[in-house]
Amino acid sequence: MTTTMTPSNITAPTRLVEVANQTYAYRRFGNGSGSPLLCLQHFTGTLDNWDPAVTDPLASAREVILFDNAGIGRSTGTVPESVAGMATHALAFLDGLGIERCDVLGFSLGGMVAQQMVLDRPSVFRRMILVATAPRGGEDIMHLEKPKLSRYFNDPGLQSYAILQKIFFAPTASSQAAGEAFVARLGQRTGDLDPRSGPQVAAAQIAAFREWEQYTGERFADLKHISQPALVVNGVHDEMIPVRNSFWLAEHLPNAMLLTYPDAGHGSLFQWHDSFQHHVSEFLASNSPFAPY
Amino acid sequence: MTTTMTPSNITAPTRLVEVANQTYAYRRFGNGSGSPLLCLQHFTGTLDNWDPAVTDPLASAREVILFDNAGIGRSTGTVPESVAGMATHALAFLDGLGIERCDVLGFSLGGMVAQQMVLDRPSVFRRMILVATAPRGGEDIMHLEKPKLSRYFNDPGLQSYAILQKIFFAPTASSQAAGEAFVARLGQRTGDLDPRSGPQVAAAQIAAFREWEQYTGERFADLKHISQPALVVNGVHDEMIPVRNSFWLAEHLPNAMLLTYPDAGHGSLFQWHDSFQHHVSEFLASNSPFAPY
Repeated sequence: MTTTMTPSNITAPTRLVEVANQTYAYRRFGNGSGSPLLCLQHFTGTLDNWDPAVTDPLASAREVILFDNAGIGRSTGTVPESVAGMATHALAFLDGLGIERCDVLGFSLGGMVAQQMVLDRPSVFRRMILVATAPRGGEDIMHLEKPKLSRYFNDPGLQSYAILQKIFFAPTASSQAAGEAFVARLGQRTGDLDPRSGPQVAAAQIAAFREWEQYTGERFADLKHISQPALVVNGVHDEMIPVRNSFWLAEHLPNAMLLTYPDAGHGSLFQWHDSFQHHVSEFLASNSPFAPY
Repeated sequence: MTTTMTPSNITAPTRLVEVANQTYAYRRFGNGSGSPLLCLQHFTGTLDNWDPAVTDPLASAREVILFDNAGIGRSTGTVPESVAGMATHALAFLDGLGIERCDVLGFSLGGMVAQQMVLDRPSVFRRMILVATAPRGGEDIMHLEKPKLSRYFNDPGLQSYAILQKIFFAPTASSQAAGEAFVARLGQRTGDLDPRSGPQVAAAQIAAFREWEQYTGERFADLKHISQPALVVNGVHDEMIPVRNSFWLAEHLPNAMLLTYPDAGHGSLFQWHDSFQHHVSEFLASNSPFAPY
């Protein structure tokens, strides 16, 4: 298998790296003078869930690194039941690749892992993008049992990626059309696919969400210790992790800009991919110590 | 008096236009192929309160039009005690200039007037920027009597623009330094100045804020009728019109993006002027029917 001419998640080969007793699966593509961008994935998502309309433009100016955490896709081990456990694996993965400095883009669960990684080892991270996620102590994080979400999870007609169109996009014709296009883009990759996540993956990740909702002491106090420039992004109609969690991130991170998208839910980055990759590109191109770009 | 070579609010002459029995003062400078940008000012602010670091870069691609509403600066008449009354004057002013289509940037009180103008005569407006403002039915709008603000208004040592450094900027060393730079920029204009607003102006505008906090029927329902692409901007530490009002705008306007700035208060546009004018320029350069840029 050879690297393709145009860096893309449609064609990038899946690679494996061994660290201690663990094997991690990843894809790494793109080039340019920018810091590598580690991308951390959502609930049950694998390498195949990264939209090429988001990853590929970003890969034109830097290496994009997609990562399967422990127990996901072709990574070995078991899925941790805490965000902290996932952050430990992701840091070990970076060590395995010999990456000492990078940017990080965390989507949903991945955004929680990103926050924890930055707290655990701040020197590694230059800039961070937190999409559709929540701070520790956030509210209404991935409560799939609530009626607005369970109706989709309990619908046997929604198989495979079809459920993503429902849960990542707003219930408007325009957002649903964007969801359909997103699903079609994911379908462009047809070989070298990750195995899908099963119910044990989901159960462990849900346990991690429940733990992440807990806090002791002053609420959101951890965020004061994240000095990296941050870009916080969400759709205003996110039912999975409501946008007020992004508001809290923007209010309590000392160095964050917030960007919200209209007519969009959890998957605003996929719906408004042209705008999203443009803003992320400008944000990452900045070498200012401050988030505004 | 002649128009200067470089379009700037430091040097642009104040002009007068007669409409019916009213005279409105304004400045108009800049050029380019963009729609004219009408700028609507904050509580007690005059033409002299527009920061050249914001207006001048925007004037490189369009005409920027600064406007004194009735009873402000050298405009005749009395200050209306409602936002609706101010919107009527501002629309009459546009009629007086013969402007049938434009963009609008409303800051604070000016953002409320902008919303009302767009509701009253939607065909005039192409795109809108709402900075540090609130929807009708918003909360905690310009309550100058609350301790966090009254300590500045009751301080006899804070004269002239010095109070703006306190009330428009966050109480951090970095934000206060930005405030000092802002005040210095305002001081660059030394001639052809507007008379300062007196207590009668303030009282009428405060009455308008109190009226704007009221609503009947479904809260924020008016916003559904604003289909123009909107860019909503605020600092997360705004004490004058707290950022949650901007959150509501972003959640209820059907076609709005929200951008928030860290370490900044009411005057985030002046503190982060390079970023602000960049985002506004990109937003206004778009001809998409959708807000994302």
